[in-house]
Amino acid sequence: MTAEAAATGPHVLRRINVAGVLQALRDSPDLTARVSDLTAATGLSRPAVTRALAHLADAGLVASLGVEPHQAGRPAVRVRFRAEAGHVAGIDIGPHTMALVIADLAGAPQAERRVPIAPAPTGPDLVRILRTELADLAGGAGVPASGLWAVAVGTPGVVDHGRGEVVLAPSIPGWTGLPMLAGLREWLDCPVLLDNDVNLAVLAEQRTGDAAPTLLYVHWGERIGTGLVIDGRPHRGAGSAAGELGFVDLATPIDRTPEPAADGLGAFERLAGAEAIRRLAVESCDASLAAALRSDPDLRPLFQAAADGDPAAPPVVETAAARFARGLAVHLLLVDPGVVVVGGGLAHGGDLLLDAVRRHLEPLVLAPFEMRISGLQENAVVTGAVWMALDHAEKRLATLLG
Amino acid sequence: MTAEAAATGPHVLRRINVAGVLQALRDSPDLTARVSDLTAATGLSRPAVTRALAHLADAGLVASLGVEPHQAGRPAVRVRFRAEAGHVAGIDIGPHTMALVIADLAGAPQAERRVPIAPAPTGPDLVRILRTELADLAGGAGVPASGLWAVAVGTPGVVDHGRGEVVLAPSIPGWTGLPMLAGLREWLDCPVLLDNDVNLAVLAEQRTGDAAPTLLYVHWGERIGTGLVIDGRPHRGAGSAAGELGFVDLATPIDRTPEPAADGLGAFERLAGAEAIRRLAVESCDASLAAALRSDPDLRPLFQAAADGDPAAPPVVETAAARFARGLAVHLLLVDPGVVVVGGGLAHGGDLLLDAVRRHLEPLVLAPFEMRISGLQENAVVTGAVWMALDHAEKRLATLLG
Repeated sequence: MTAEAAATGPHVLRRINVAGVLQALRDSPDLTARVSDLTAATGLSRPAVTRALAHLADAGLVASLGVEPHQAGRPAVRVRFRAEAGHVAGIDIGPHTMALVIADLAGAPQAERRVPIAPAPTGPDLVRILRTELADLAGGAGVPASGLWAVAVGTPGVVDHGRGEVVLAPSIPGWTGLPMLAGLREWLDCPVLLDNDVNLAVLAEQRTGDAAPTLLYVHWGERIGTGLVIDGRPHRGAGSAAGELGFVDLATPIDRTPEPAADGLGAFERLAGAEAIRRLAVESCDASLAAALRSDPDLRPLFQAAADGDPAAPPVVETAAARFARGLAVHLLLVDPGVVVVGGGLAHGGDLLLDAVRRHLEPLVLAPFEMRISGLQENAVVTGAVWMALDHAEKRLATLLG
Repeated sequence: MTAEAAATGPHVLRRINVAGVLQALRDSPDLTARVSDLTAATGLSRPAVTRALAHLADAGLVASLGVEPHQAGRPAVRVRFRAEAGHVAGIDIGPHTMALVIADLAGAPQAERRVPIAPAPTGPDLVRILRTELADLAGGAGVPASGLWAVAVGTPGVVDHGRGEVVLAPSIPGWTGLPMLAGLREWLDCPVLLDNDVNLAVLAEQRTGDAAPTLLYVHWGERIGTGLVIDGRPHRGAGSAAGELGFVDLATPIDRTPEPAADGLGAFERLAGAEAIRRLAVESCDASLAAALRSDPDLRPLFQAAADGDPAAPPVVETAAARFARGLAVHLLLVDPGVVVVGGGLAHGGDLLLDAVRRHLEPLVLAPFEMRISGLQENAVVTGAVWMALDHAEKRLATLLG
């Protein structure tokens, strides 16, 4: 403690002042502020703020917007955070699609792209597509891929976040065990981070949608998985394998031994995932709806039919809700997160579906909860990847403060 | 930050020194140390340590053990932490038994007692028993109940830790909604804390048995519930209702609506709890073992029979293990705690039972885990209560440091 006190010299204080001014500017509306706004926000003197701004301008992080008349008639200098001083990339690798976003230091997307992936790609194929698409997208946004400050990649399966390896990815053949980030890191010369896709979705949800300190995100699509933030910190699990709701077995009778899956899907995914619900719907509805359902990966035609009064649709929606509620109830009983956000393809079911889920959950749980549909829809994972990359970019930003 | 730096005056430093010396002494073997041990442990000078010790002696927290010869022939003063300077109580209220422990400031039990509770007691009855027994036990240990520094109480059910109320306790009729701590607080004039019993068990397990930062404790008895510590912090859930594994429903077919319970037990407790296993065992074994099983709440005769080679026992142990594994697998899939400690009556099954559970878990989970029997057995909750009370007593200790 005394050693810390001794380290509090003038250079440390100056650095703290510079960081404080930068933070206040980044928290300002439109990322612009007057010097007087910054003195008010930081409690620093006008000379201290001016010195900090000069330092930030030298580092390329602040630009002057010139002098504007102030309320009392005195001229005031307005400055702007140069969010374009750096860029990051967020990437979402799904079983069918790859999504990429290039964002500036304020998280504003500068370029984005969604690329379909051929069925059953190999790991090396995916890495090749990823390199090509990222280089092309970044180049188009005027940023060489080698100029990115950080890249974060979300992928299904059990991910070793620290080592950047996919430990287990049943839904992408050839993906398991692939040290995919080593090659990317060499090529890009910047930090490349890897996390489970649903862990990134819950991060995005918390940063952009819901400020609840504890939050459960449930991806409800062909796959079913959850991401959990507890007291603001992501909970990945001791082996990075938390949140595997899709593999919970509610179907095998208690005194029988569960059969191993042949299709890479988990037991609960086979009951309540998009494919299972699609099969139920196709069996019970007329030919035209069945055809529409077969061609839409997200079951939108089912929910549209329910809204249009097609009598075949509500029983299927009800079954989907009842099954999903049985699995979600288990999560709520064990973790009691308080707030649940539902994303993934089934989120297209909206309140119609969610109201039915709530009704079925009610008698199964012991504590109150709030539940809503994700506002980010299919962009949740790639948005979370951008946020994770931005968190990492903060380290580089800090080195620019001197 | 500058305000903090300004607060670092000589009085603050002295207080930090006193606290550091006290901590070093409490961390020493047998709570005793020589002045030279304390200078080595704290990095403080001998005069600073001597001043701190004088201050601690004035506060009644340190006693001198006199001068002893040192290795180099120089005399050395040995001092002792006066753990008897304060006392706390830990209490475990179960459906059948109440356990109480009076401990000193080092957590060493000074008096302990286990009191049977009449079937189906009311809440006020329990509070009455608790007051009488606590006063008697503390008095016998030479501590008036009014002299306790803190009291912590563990109880089954959903507990509002902050308000000291039992929100929901299906296993103790009349307990739900009882603001039981208000009366105790008035009477005792010290902090009285309330927590879910399994949350206290996991605290005890972490402090005394396992230093893993993330740890799942599973109580496996008539009731089944879990306590979770994540990165060293207890996870109680948004509504204090996490860990209700006993209410997870693995029995009702997925497309049927679960029936509400009439017996206060949860669905998984009715499948894999001690009562369910006892019924299975009684049905399949001979009359003498059946009689022994009926009279022992912890199924010890079953495990003894299995160890003795009774052919009726292994199939029951196997069924118990297989059912329990199905429920525990759900928890491991969702939370991935890495380390699991099993306590409660079924823990008497020891490695015989746990090896079978491990075998059944293996194909059901995605990440590796370690699992062991709690070394604290039926004392886990009351030991955790003592630790929680001691944590609170630290605040009072801090005020004595001046």
